[in-house]
Amino acid sequence: MSDVVETTPARRSIGATRNPDSEAAILAAAEAVLLESGLNGFSIEAVAKRARAGKPTIYRWWPSQAALLLDVYHSRKRVNFIYPDTGTIRGDLRAYLSGLLTTWREGTSGEVFRCVVAKAQAEPAALAALSAYMSDRRCQSGKIIEKAQARGEVRADVKPELITELLSSFAWGRLLTERLDVPEDEIDAIVDTVLSGIALKPVA
Amino acid sequence: MSDVVETTPARRSIGATRNPDSEAAILAAAEAVLLESGLNGFSIEAVAKRARAGKPTIYRWWPSQAALLLDVYHSRKRVNFIYPDTGTIRGDLRAYLSGLLTTWREGTSGEVFRCVVAKAQAEPAALAALSAYMSDRRCQSGKIIEKAQARGEVRADVKPELITELLSSFAWGRLLTERLDVPEDEIDAIVDTVLSGIALKPVA
Repeated sequence: MSDVVETTPARRSIGATRNPDSEAAILAAAEAVLLESGLNGFSIEAVAKRARAGKPTIYRWWPSQAALLLDVYHSRKRVNFIYPDTGTIRGDLRAYLSGLLTTWREGTSGEVFRCVVAKAQAEPAALAALSAYMSDRRCQSGKIIEKAQARGEVRADVKPELITELLSSFAWGRLLTERLDVPEDEIDAIVDTVLSGIALKPVA
Repeated sequence: MSDVVETTPARRSIGATRNPDSEAAILAAAEAVLLESGLNGFSIEAVAKRARAGKPTIYRWWPSQAALLLDVYHSRKRVNFIYPDTGTIRGDLRAYLSGLLTTWREGTSGEVFRCVVAKAQAEPAALAALSAYMSDRRCQSGKIIEKAQARGEVRADVKPELITELLSSFAWGRLLTERLDVPEDEIDAIVDTVLSGIALKPVA
């Protein structure tokens, strides 16, 4: 998918410059601990031990376990789907939905992300980290609609973030119930359904 | 919402007849333990103690904590929205989406349901219970579309369960990020977007 441009969300630095090598080692250790021990066995202590890093360093760079896991997630996504630019709204929405389902199905990012969502149901700090991350993501994915509005493909009164949220929420539901293997014709049906409702002109 | 008919999902009995009084006491105890102690403090032992019931009874009636919590959830939903019958597809889809958001925002059912979803990310038995429940629910809510197809409001090629899943997934996403307070105009926008994509005739 060479027509896809990835954007990096702004880091919420808390005053310390991260050392890239240490950061990479900690992210790798966090991923390994999560995948080996599961969510219930995950701890900053285990991550620090495995990465040969100090717990204070980890706490300085990531304010919560969920913030650390979201960085693992963001760094591991195998398909860069956030901001597709295929030239048409149908192509972009399809790439967005299909990309989410694919990246969560293949690789480890789906496993990491569902752990973050689970943590957010019991820990306020995790919910805060997830909410901040999702706010960034909605802003990015909403640009799919904004560009289509600028091209005259989508009605001006459509709220950009609401439409991409409709597609990403469907993918969330599939991730959280382990039903990510959506047939191509169902992806088409969903995209065309949404597209008919937002298009400036009738969809062929 | 007197125009709404609730249906009860078939109980998966495992060979023992439930005593209604004991069942009600156990459901009430499970709800109280969950809301007081949170997901991490929830245990069958605590539920049994509070309900003055035997742990074997609970295990005989509910094969997993998640199955018990799903029964709490189903018995506590304050709005019976699963199978609205307003006479039009727009009315039914609106009642369905609005009902989900409202019942989760008011009362305790949303809190119980998000705990079940969280448990399902770490425990296979919880995922199995949630999957069975959602399969029932999709079948029920899909009837909204089937009736509209029979009335000639919705195209025959539309997959009923896929469309209501699109709406319920949006509600899941809002529940799991504590953003259930969706403005009326956004609910309308979502329903009309989906409706335009599935209607037999152009939507006014």
